[in-house]
Amino acid sequence: MARVVLGMLGCGTVGTGVIRLLSQHNTLHLKKVAIKDAGKQRAVTLPCPLTTDPAELVDDPEIEVLIEVMGGEEPALTLIKKAIDKRKHIVTANKEVLAKHGPELFKLSRQKGVAIFFEASVAGGVPLISTIQKGLEANKINSVVGILNGTTNFILSSMEEKGEDFQTALKKAQELGYAEADPTSDIEGYDVAYKLSILSALAFGKFAEPKTIFRQGIAAIAPQDFINAKQFGYRIKLLGRTQMNERGLNTRVQPHLVPLGHPLAAVSGANNGIVVNGDAVGELTMIGPGAGELPTASAVVGDVINLESALGLPDFASYFQAAISPSFADLADPGDWVSPHYIRLEVKDTPGVIGRIGTAFGNHQLSIRSIIQKDASQGQASVVVMTQAAPTRNMDAAIEELKQEQFLRDQAVVLPLLEATS
Amino acid sequence: MARVVLGMLGCGTVGTGVIRLLSQHNTLHLKKVAIKDAGKQRAVTLPCPLTTDPAELVDDPEIEVLIEVMGGEEPALTLIKKAIDKRKHIVTANKEVLAKHGPELFKLSRQKGVAIFFEASVAGGVPLISTIQKGLEANKINSVVGILNGTTNFILSSMEEKGEDFQTALKKAQELGYAEADPTSDIEGYDVAYKLSILSALAFGKFAEPKTIFRQGIAAIAPQDFINAKQFGYRIKLLGRTQMNERGLNTRVQPHLVPLGHPLAAVSGANNGIVVNGDAVGELTMIGPGAGELPTASAVVGDVINLESALGLPDFASYFQAAISPSFADLADPGDWVSPHYIRLEVKDTPGVIGRIGTAFGNHQLSIRSIIQKDASQGQASVVVMTQAAPTRNMDAAIEELKQEQFLRDQAVVLPLLEATS
Repeated sequence: MARVVLGMLGCGTVGTGVIRLLSQHNTLHLKKVAIKDAGKQRAVTLPCPLTTDPAELVDDPEIEVLIEVMGGEEPALTLIKKAIDKRKHIVTANKEVLAKHGPELFKLSRQKGVAIFFEASVAGGVPLISTIQKGLEANKINSVVGILNGTTNFILSSMEEKGEDFQTALKKAQELGYAEADPTSDIEGYDVAYKLSILSALAFGKFAEPKTIFRQGIAAIAPQDFINAKQFGYRIKLLGRTQMNERGLNTRVQPHLVPLGHPLAAVSGANNGIVVNGDAVGELTMIGPGAGELPTASAVVGDVINLESALGLPDFASYFQAAISPSFADLADPGDWVSPHYIRLEVKDTPGVIGRIGTAFGNHQLSIRSIIQKDASQGQASVVVMTQAAPTRNMDAAIEELKQEQFLRDQAVVLPLLEATS
Repeated sequence: MARVVLGMLGCGTVGTGVIRLLSQHNTLHLKKVAIKDAGKQRAVTLPCPLTTDPAELVDDPEIEVLIEVMGGEEPALTLIKKAIDKRKHIVTANKEVLAKHGPELFKLSRQKGVAIFFEASVAGGVPLISTIQKGLEANKINSVVGILNGTTNFILSSMEEKGEDFQTALKKAQELGYAEADPTSDIEGYDVAYKLSILSALAFGKFAEPKTIFRQGIAAIAPQDFINAKQFGYRIKLLGRTQMNERGLNTRVQPHLVPLGHPLAAVSGANNGIVVNGDAVGELTMIGPGAGELPTASAVVGDVINLESALGLPDFASYFQAAISPSFADLADPGDWVSPHYIRLEVKDTPGVIGRIGTAFGNHQLSIRSIIQKDASQGQASVVVMTQAAPTRNMDAAIEELKQEQFLRDQAVVLPLLEATS
């Protein structure tokens, strides 16, 4: 087989892993790597010349496949578009570029007859994308629900296991290199929203524009929420979920109470775990490393090898992405989302509080499964409410009503429950 | 796209599901189905003629792809060989034929330039085969360990949850349709051995001849083994595992103690669960339905669709199975397998028994992690030993030595422990 000529944009953690793995495949020839800082020490010896000018790769007619592992929106987006314009196939790990500009990129790639492979952009080493695209080809996908961010899963696992508060667990994750100095993208759910945009394209044919995806981060969760959850038989996990129903695409990032017997409850530390529900297969769970040098490089190089094998296909570009439409999906109103909820209210311990909480929920058609007052001391108490399934809109309205009450001491913590069969 | 013409051998549970799913794909045209009993009532309306003569399909030059879902060794093997000889591509769910005759069939298919797709032959709806072949393409596989038989997993789950003995749980599984009237293939591990033969071909390039695979069934396990396992933090699961080391391929079917935190411990009922260890990705877990009409049909029809898309490839046959060698692997001596073990010995409760057991283990270089005497009553007792890792050969020799003792009342139950990182 002729050697496929590759170029690579970026050589950080993932790029280093790619170089390690490519050395085992002699049909693949890495011609040049573009980097930002030519003076930086690297953990691998590069098998090819370096350049600080990415145009040298994008404009090189000999390079057939461009690997993009630089990350971030720009200049990655501009470089990928130029490379597609020059009819290069793209292998990318860049969730942000795909999530925000997927429709434009896929439209362009179809016009130019090239392929975009992106296994590494979601769930790192877990071959989730090829599983949805090829392994579940005979299925209509109903939903995808998962733990898609290792950083927040690590933090939540620490809080649960060690009773730490959020700030302590975050600081430890930063010290261990699991969380970045600015952790906003992880803890506020942006990272998961990018991944959900891509998963929506695979499962339902259209990207979900990240800024339109409902997001709730993990910063408001406190140690007592884990204790409360455990008493009811749950664990707290940040989930991304996307699901098509009659009102449109429901796509959201939100910490959930996950039942202990559910396969996602067992996903601990920095791992990712995803449940895909297909009309024929039922529920398929995949669990594995969501990040890291070699796992992510495993996905990138797997893409390169699969792309190489398929290069001879007559209708090559459409073989891999015919089903992805070049437009963003219309998302359903997040208030329509129906779920049971866990609510923790910090209140002044005065007579009649439980009654007024119950009334507020009743005013918005929320049935209560259980209501428990806990930890009453020094005139303060914690009230934990578990509701039956109801639209999020009603939940929000009930909480709004309670905010008018003098007895509410703090923001309510409101978390949906993942049902045993999602 | 031109319509691909299909024929199907067999129309039982899986075939019925295939017909249901094929109706959703109008590029696929099912021309004829061969069945055994023309008078049988079927759950679906067939979209094409039936025949009781399979040669009508095998000899039909218009049929490009033959789906084989009849099961069993013959006449399936002969019909598949004839079809390959006539240059038809094969999609099969037949683990027995592949496990026993894989080398011959793959050699023949390469000579004739056709492909054999077999996603449905292992783990039903779980797309394990495409994951190993395509999703983990950049990895050298170290091991595959899994719960590959839903019948035995259902029985073991029942025994654990309800404290039932083996015969009761088996009978219930038969009544519910989870176990066959003759359950030998499931409970003695033959079914898992077939699947391991196929997984060995995918992971290490060579089939493992089923009759050479070490097998231990589940019939000797008793309710107290689940109680003992739980006290040590384990659950009992029938595992198939295949792993390459310096002595050759280690491939075995054996009930194991699985640590409660391990992802396979959470696989309950009739589900399958598999952990693939690759050098780049680390551990990847997949869990899903291992059998059933639609899940298995999902795998069959997925194969047909992927085959259809790839039909234009210039080097089509080698694209999918170049890495599978047309010969059986040399298996390592099962006695070389190194593992910690759980042993339950039923003994007469006489002085010195613990000492003599300890001595027998010591005589064969087995270090004991713990030894507990339980349930002493009416002159009888149960002794539970947990050993450190040692070759199975030493374990067998120690048990042989103990059989000479007068105090041993019954067969020893010996189960390996799955380590937290397998």
